[in-house]
This record gives sequence, C-alpha cells and structure tokens, in this order.
Amino acid sequence: MTEDALTASLRSPAAAAVPGAGTLLRLLRDGRPRTRSELASVTGLARSTVTQRVDALLASGLIGPAGEAVSTGGRPPTTFSFRPDARVVLAADLGATHARLALTDMSGTVLAEDRADIDIALGPEHVLDWVVDHGLALLASAGRGTGDLLGVGVGLPGPVQHSTGRAVNPPIMPGWDGFDVSGHVRGRIDRPVLVDNDVNIMAVGEHHVAWPTASHLLFVKVATGIGCGIVSEGSVYRGAQGAAGDMGHIHVPSGADRPCRCGNTGCLEAVASGHALAEALTAEGVPASGARDVVELSRNGSVPALRALRQAGRDVGEVLAASVNMFNPSVIVVGGALAMAGDHLLAGVREVIYQRSLPLATENLSIASSKAGESAGVIGAAVMVIEHCLSPEHAESLVMGA
Amino acid sequence: MTEDALTASLRSPAAAAVPGAGTLLRLLRDGRPRTRSELASVTGLARSTVTQRVDALLASGLIGPAGEAVSTGGRPPTTFSFRPDARVVLAADLGATHARLALTDMSGTVLAEDRADIDIALGPEHVLDWVVDHGLALLASAGRGTGDLLGVGVGLPGPVQHSTGRAVNPPIMPGWDGFDVSGHVRGRIDRPVLVDNDVNIMAVGEHHVAWPTASHLLFVKVATGIGCGIVSEGSVYRGAQGAAGDMGHIHVPSGADRPCRCGNTGCLEAVASGHALAEALTAEGVPASGARDVVELSRNGSVPALRALRQAGRDVGEVLAASVNMFNPSVIVVGGALAMAGDHLLAGVREVIYQRSLPLATENLSIASSKAGESAGVIGAAVMVIEHCLSPEHAESLVMGA
Repeated sequence: MTEDALTASLRSPAAAAVPGAGTLLRLLRDGRPRTRSELASVTGLARSTVTQRVDALLASGLIGPAGEAVSTGGRPPTTFSFRPDARVVLAADLGATHARLALTDMSGTVLAEDRADIDIALGPEHVLDWVVDHGLALLASAGRGTGDLLGVGVGLPGPVQHSTGRAVNPPIMPGWDGFDVSGHVRGRIDRPVLVDNDVNIMAVGEHHVAWPTASHLLFVKVATGIGCGIVSEGSVYRGAQGAAGDMGHIHVPSGADRPCRCGNTGCLEAVASGHALAEALTAEGVPASGARDVVELSRNGSVPALRALRQAGRDVGEVLAASVNMFNPSVIVVGGALAMAGDHLLAGVREVIYQRSLPLATENLSIASSKAGESAGVIGAAVMVIEHCLSPEHAESLVMGA
Repeated sequence: MTEDALTASLRSPAAAAVPGAGTLLRLLRDGRPRTRSELASVTGLARSTVTQRVDALLASGLIGPAGEAVSTGGRPPTTFSFRPDARVVLAADLGATHARLALTDMSGTVLAEDRADIDIALGPEHVLDWVVDHGLALLASAGRGTGDLLGVGVGLPGPVQHSTGRAVNPPIMPGWDGFDVSGHVRGRIDRPVLVDNDVNIMAVGEHHVAWPTASHLLFVKVATGIGCGIVSEGSVYRGAQGAAGDMGHIHVPSGADRPCRCGNTGCLEAVASGHALAEALTAEGVPASGARDVVELSRNGSVPALRALRQAGRDVGEVLAASVNMFNPSVIVVGGALAMAGDHLLAGVREVIYQRSLPLATENLSIASSKAGESAGVIGAAVMVIEHCLSPEHAESLVMGA
C-alpha cells in the first residue's frame, strides 16, 4: 500500500469498524468464554446478527462451545471461547548462513522446530523451496495438513517491502532483489504469506515473549550488521517508506572518516558491527574474521576483544541515546551475535544512554539483553501472521472462506 | 494514564469498537450526506438502533437533514450530514512573552482571533484568566455562547502531562510546575479542556493546514529553545512517558564540551538555539540578545549572523539525519523564530540530511519551512480538541449530554 493510500485508508470513514465475525473473534481472543447475549450486549449488534456470526465462527472451528453459563431461569445458555489450536502457523527466520523454522499455534506457542545451515546466497528459489519442503514436513510430523495453516511468516536478512512481500536491494542476498517471496511461497502453499526483515520480526518476538505490556520497544541487533526493529503500541513501526530502524548508517562521533560499505563515512556499522570489530582486532594483531570470532575471543578473556565490545556498546549507545530523547521508548533490547558475549556490549550501551539522555526519558526505561534469544525471529514471524490473519478486517474472510 | 494502563486499554477487548452515535458521527464527518438505510448497511447496526442514534445526533445539532435521496419507490428517504459549525472551539497558544487566541469551527477554520503580549512568568492564574476573559469575549463577538463550545485547547511553552493537563517542571514558567491548567480553566468554562506543549500543537496545526495526508511528520521549532513535535498516522506520537520530541538535548559533534542549561554538555540547544547564537555572536563582537536580534541581523545582511544560522541548520540537520534513518518520516517542517530568517537555517538542515541519510529514507522526504506560520499553534490546539471530542469514544457522551 502506498503512503497516501495507507493514510487515506486510516482517515477514511470506511475505516470505522464494521462489526462482523472478526470483531466477535477479537473479543473472544482473550480466552474468556461468553454467551451470545453477552456478545450482543458488548457489541451493540442485533441478537440475530450475533447468532449468525457465532455459527460461522463455530463452522470455521476458530471458536468452540465452552460449557454453560449460569441460568437466570430456563435452559442455561452456552458459552463460546477462542481455540488457539484450531489453526497452526509456519514461521521461517532466514539468516545469511542459516535458517530456522517453527510451527506454532495461534497463541505463538512453538509446537515443533527445525534448523539448518543454508547460505542465503544460494538464491530465493533454492532457499524458499527448502523452507516449504521442511515446513510441510514439520506440519505432517505434527499431524496437521495445509488446510490447518493460518498462514506463513518469513523473515529475511535485508530490506523488505512489507506490503508486497518483496526483498528490496538486499546487500547480502544476491539474486533476491525484487523477488516476489510471498508469491513464490504461495505458489506451493496457498495461504497468506507475510514477509518482513529479520530485525522487525525479532522485535515482535521479543515483545511477545518478554515485554508484552511495553508500549514502545526498540530491538537492536548487533551482529555482522546493525539494525533496529521498533514496536510501537503493539505494532511494528515502519515509517513512511518502511525504512524505519536503519540505525547502522547513522553517523557517530567516533566514526570520524572511517569508510562504510554504504559509501558514506563514520557510520555506526563502520565502527561497531561484528565485521568492523574483527577488522580492527586483526589490525591490532588479534586475528578475527567475524562476529563469532570476536565473541569467542571475549569468552577467552582477550582484553582487546573486551575493550572493543565495550566501545562498540558505547557507539551503539550514542545513537540510542538520541533515539531515547526523540522517541521515548519504555524498553530497549540488545540482541544479535555480539550481544551473546556476556554483558560487555550492554554495559557500554547503558553507560552512554544514562549519561546522555534526559531524566524524564530514562526514569522508567529498561535496557536489557534479549530473553527470546535465537527464537525471537520465528516467534515474531508467527505473531506477525497471527495478528494479521485474526485482525477484524482479515478474520472475516477467514470465516467466510470456511 | 500510566503506560501499563494505556497498553492494557489498547489490548483489552473493551477497545473493540462499540458502535454508537460516535461511530455514525465518524462516518458522517467526511461531509457526504447519507440515509438511515445507508448508515445501517455500512455499520451492520439494526435499523431501529440507527434511527435512535440519528435522532440523538439531530437533537444535539451535530448533524442535520441534508435533503432527500433518490427514491426507489415511495417517499424519498431523508439524508443527513455533519454540521461543522454546530459547535466552536476556543484555542490558546501561550509563548514565553505572548499569547494567541482563536475561535474555530469543528473543521479547524479560524472564525476570530486575538493576540497580546503577556509574560508567562506572571503565573498560571493571571495568564489563564486572561485566556478565559478574552476567550469569552471572542465567543460573544462571534454571537456564540459557552453552550456552543465543544472544548478548549491550550498550548504551553514547556513539558505537559497530557493525560492530566498539568505543566511538569517547565524551565521558563515559574509558578506553573504541577499546576492543574485544565482544572483551572474548567472552573470557569465547564467544557473539556485539553493541554499540550506548544511544539506538539504546532506539529498538529502544520499537519492539518499543509500536510493533511502525510503519514509521519516532524515539526522542529528552532527558537530560544529547540523542540520537536511528531505526528504519526494522524496522532501526536508521545512515547512511553510523553517525553518524545525532546531533541534540544541530543548530543551533537560540534557541541564538544559546551555547557548546556540542562547540566550536560554538547547539547544541540547549547550550539544552535537562538540563545546560543546570540551569545556566540556577541562574543564575536556582533551584539545580539536573543533569537529576534539574530533574525534582525541576518535580514540586515550580517555575515556572522548568516554564517551562524547556516551552521545552526547543520547542527539541527545532524540530529534530524539520525531521526530520518531511525524513524523514516515523510515530512520535516522547520519552524520557530530562527526559521523566520529566510532559508539560511533550512539550507543547513537540508545539506546535512541529504548528505547523511540513506537514499531509501530521503527518496520521498519533503523538508520545508512552516506554512501555517504563527497560526500553527492555535489551529493545532483546536484540532486536538476536535479530534478528541468527536472521537467515537467521546462523541457519545457529547450526544448523550445534549
């Protein structure tokens, strides 16, 4: 959807909720059983309309009878509740050199997992066919069929046009530029397919697992590259062109004239990414070829590696301190390969944020390492599909299609 | 509302739209007349419910009959439309040394205005009593009474707790800390009173007047201090504690160890505010006592003043470039006293943003000076009241109260 179309749809009167099956489902997703009368009185819908929509939801299996309410005289009325296991979600988190798969229910609980080393540079057909083949195998092993699939979520290690499900100029993904990821997967699994970049889905997964009530969360991934996913009021914040969170190419004072792969100088990624740290350590006579080596060195007590991680944390903190003043998040989560090296990176981040940000903005700010860890991506990809498909707007087609 | 309460309310099933008079009003606000049958079919409400709610809206005067639709046989049905002049809004924009007042209709069109030099340091009772006295006079001169008032909007030159309508630690407003601004005004005008800081309402006003379809707008005020208001998807973005947009105290490279009034060093305000520029020019032998003098000097062709404005623009641009990468706005508006000095400030802002930000984020980015100018504040304060009072949630009490 273009920016203008999106804005227009948000402002248009048609965006006024049209209560249907989706609205009833949204109410019932809290797990509390309700009678038809309760649903009619909460929504203001005619009793006959509620009955019709409850029947459609029952037929779809998305809700089921949940016992009887206390009678006020006469036959006690039936209550209905949401069934999170009525459908499953297939989620894929693709990295530069590995892929993770998970099958979840509609509450985001992981039912089965798979993982493999696979090079993203093998190209979209090869990698996505692996996702589909292994996804279908996971589904079968859980005793479910494609008819049980709510949808498929895919995270990619590069920029994605979320509205069309295509990769856009991904620097480390040869052959993927403009590729119709969601169309290719739908060609084999005819269900809704949602695609997003890995940092966005990690932010959603971390929010779901560890900070479900946080109103504004920043998830910073510090690995070979540096990126940020933003969850604001329960949704991914994408900005006008979907480019929000690209913090790796923000200028930092310590960057000076250091050249960056983006063509500019002094970018955060040029001084604080796993790649930059490995290069700097090698130049100091401590050979390292990437983020994993830097983490390994720090675990073995290498002082240059520890010092480099601490300084990288300060550089990341410099950019985050500005974002704290500007956007006042309630939680900052630091994840990615370099964050796996104990709290050295996090300590540097905290040091600068508390030094530079205003008291009002840091008073209730949590700065933490990732709790969802390596599952953040697949859980986030699943939650993205669940929130999309069960939203009032889309759940209606789900029910009508049943 | 606390962060958790806010998040809970957003996630709670009770947030599912309960269709009532407010929902009908929201539909009708686009100006298109509709029949009762059209309203019933769009909302899914029972015909009898629609009739009841249309009657309540007619009684409140918020809608009126708008002629007849084409008959499909029998008596042609009546259509109804929104009446923006059914109520008026009183808006006040208070600065450090002046106040502006406006009376608008419910489309934000200014019907009458007033302005005075008044020192905010005279204290809240004195200043707010002036607002009420002159506001009631404006109302009377327009032939309207307090019964016609939808509400009152007030902008203050300092931090505001929007949920309670109180000023919080305002640095240039002695006597205002913790003062119940909305309570004091309501004591004399018994209507909803909304309070926000001046930069937020300027952002809303600018968005309403000049960029109504922009999805993500940053309004930067560069004057005695420096602040930013953010409009995201049609609403003010406030962040977790309501502290978002406090860009004056973000660290800039050219700030070095320059002390700032906040107690930190190297803040944007310490190098690029009207106060900082006047001090630096005076030290260069070009005496200036504040933002107005700097603007006056630049208009008279003072090279040191022009150079200082250009550099201030670069410093502001440095902070904005980072925000562009992180939050990907579609529009950046530069306003405030220093922006009145022609395009020197704006040129510096543009120079750095285009140099530092990523192509994807700047491809469709507009960087402009304020078009709403000195009216941005009062128009924004009025729009804040209109959007609040006519939201489906609050419009219902408005109609029931009629």
